[in-house]
Amino acid sequence: MSAPFTVSVPVRYRDLDPLDHVNHAVFATYLEIARTDYLESVVDIAAEEISFVIANLEIDYERPIVKGDEPEVSLRVSRLGDSSCTMTYEIRVGDDVAATAETTMVYIDPETKRPAPFPDEIREPIAAYEGLETMA
Amino acid sequence: MSAPFTVSVPVRYRDLDPLDHVNHAVFATYLEIARTDYLESVVDIAAEEISFVIANLEIDYERPIVKGDEPEVSLRVSRLGDSSCTMTYEIRVGDDVAATAETTMVYIDPETKRPAPFPDEIREPIAAYEGLETMA
Amino acid sequence: MSAPFTVSVPVRYRDLDPLDHVNHAVFATYLEIARTDYLESVVDIAAEEISFVIANLEIDYERPIVKGDEPEVSLRVSRLGDSSCTMTYEIRVGDDVAATAETTMVYIDPETKRPAPFPDEIREPIAAYEGLETMA
Amino acid sequence: MSAPFTVSVPVRYRDLDPLDHVNHAVFATYLEIARTDYLESVVDIAAEEISFVIANLEIDYERPIVKGDEPEVSLRVSRLGDSSCTMTYEIRVGDDVAATAETTMVYIDPETKRPAPFPDEIREPIAAYEGLETMA
Repeated sequence: MSAPFTVSVPVRYRDLDPLDHVNHAVFATYLEIARTDYLESVVDIAAEEISFVIANLEIDYERPIVKGDEPEVSLRVSRLGDSSCTMTYEIRVGDDVAATAETTMVYIDPETKRPAPFPDEIREPIAAYEGLETMA
Repeated sequence: MSAPFTVSVPVRYRDLDPLDHVNHAVFATYLEIARTDYLESVVDIAAEEISFVIANLEIDYERPIVKGDEPEVSLRVSRLGDSSCTMTYEIRVGDDVAATAETTMVYIDPETKRPAPFPDEIREPIAAYEGLETMA
Repeated sequence: MSAPFTVSVPVRYRDLDPLDHVNHAVFATYLEIARTDYLESVVDIAAEEISFVIANLEIDYERPIVKGDEPEVSLRVSRLGDSSCTMTYEIRVGDDVAATAETTMVYIDPETKRPAPFPDEIREPIAAYEGLETMA
Repeated sequence: MSAPFTVSVPVRYRDLDPLDHVNHAVFATYLEIARTDYLESVVDIAAEEISFVIANLEIDYERPIVKGDEPEVSLRVSRLGDSSCTMTYEIRVGDDVAATAETTMVYIDPETKRPAPFPDEIREPIAAYEGLETMA
């Protein structure tokens, strides 16, 4: 099995809160950085063409991230359904796991603004990258 | 059973993303607004004395929030353990549920920086407000 | 001269930085809250139809804003040019001035995406509200 | 004259607003990224020890930054006073200038919380790096 898609996320001072930790809501933004990079890199979708909505987000926080850390976010598409998919994430600082997470996203037809099956130009590159079956 | 603690959250233009929706990560910030107001109002903890970490966050997104909406966040402490508690949330726009959510928080002793049982001055007002047993 | 347009901005925990102050960049967001409310209220422009770009921003910081403060932002259109205008702002906490600021905005034609003269439906309500001459 | 201190700032999807541009307030955060990196790198001040307040911020916006751009922020300390200093910035995307900016910062004594002259361990590395006179 190939290595998951991984990005480095530089910690910004603005990410910190009064506890000197990266604020917990910013973890969701770190996941989004990995996800938008994945969509651009694997599926060739630019940010302004993103046509997904997040249906569910779950994050387990294992340890704080502080300024000076160099977090990496890795993600896999762990389920590729008809019109939705699930991504699983790990945020690591060195060898430590800072958080694990999962998002479920639903594809929205840009015309009708309603959930719709993934078009092939989205489904196929994800399936190929992840080594997943492309059944609906 | 009394009404849950509820706050109104004005939507900021900066909360929006290119889809013209409140960005999904900002929902976690809306929960935090309700949570910090609850801690200040029910438990009398000021923001600079907050000594909790979030261990788990889960959000189910039901419908987008847009500029012009007037969201309200209500929360209950649904579980009050020895050193951790669970809060459940609902974000509504009018009669519609925009999201439901849950966070688990762990109390951190400000001296040792380690998880510790809730001191009575935190446990008791929460138990009283929520009508919960104060067992561990 | 009538009172300037004024909005209350609740301070969010997420607005704070490790110094326990509202981060200085968030002051620009507080100005934006007043500005978008002004455009919606005085000119009847919804957020998704905003067609201005900011050309210049200047903020003088007078005192920090902390959680528990209840800041108010007031703004006036101090100059209404042909295709640009200048807004001046004051952020107060009670009787104290926390910051003064100025932004210059340029109108962008939604079709051509180029700077263009303000259409009358924008110029006239601003001029009327501010008691300004409507010369170009 | 040596090259100014320069950092690359990856654009996050969350930096964008409904116009598909990096929101104008986020430019102030991009400046802060350069400034905190400078303080850490040139002066060896960690984020949690920052003891400056921003007294003035001015940004001239020249062109929008969009997702896919790779902005660089360069900064110089253009004035090093007794207890305050001025930094000038340029944000570039390739050969284009996206913005120029200036901030004035005041040193705060961590004990008294009042403005105070820069201690030598801050003044001297800045003066050396910038080739400035170290007069008060």
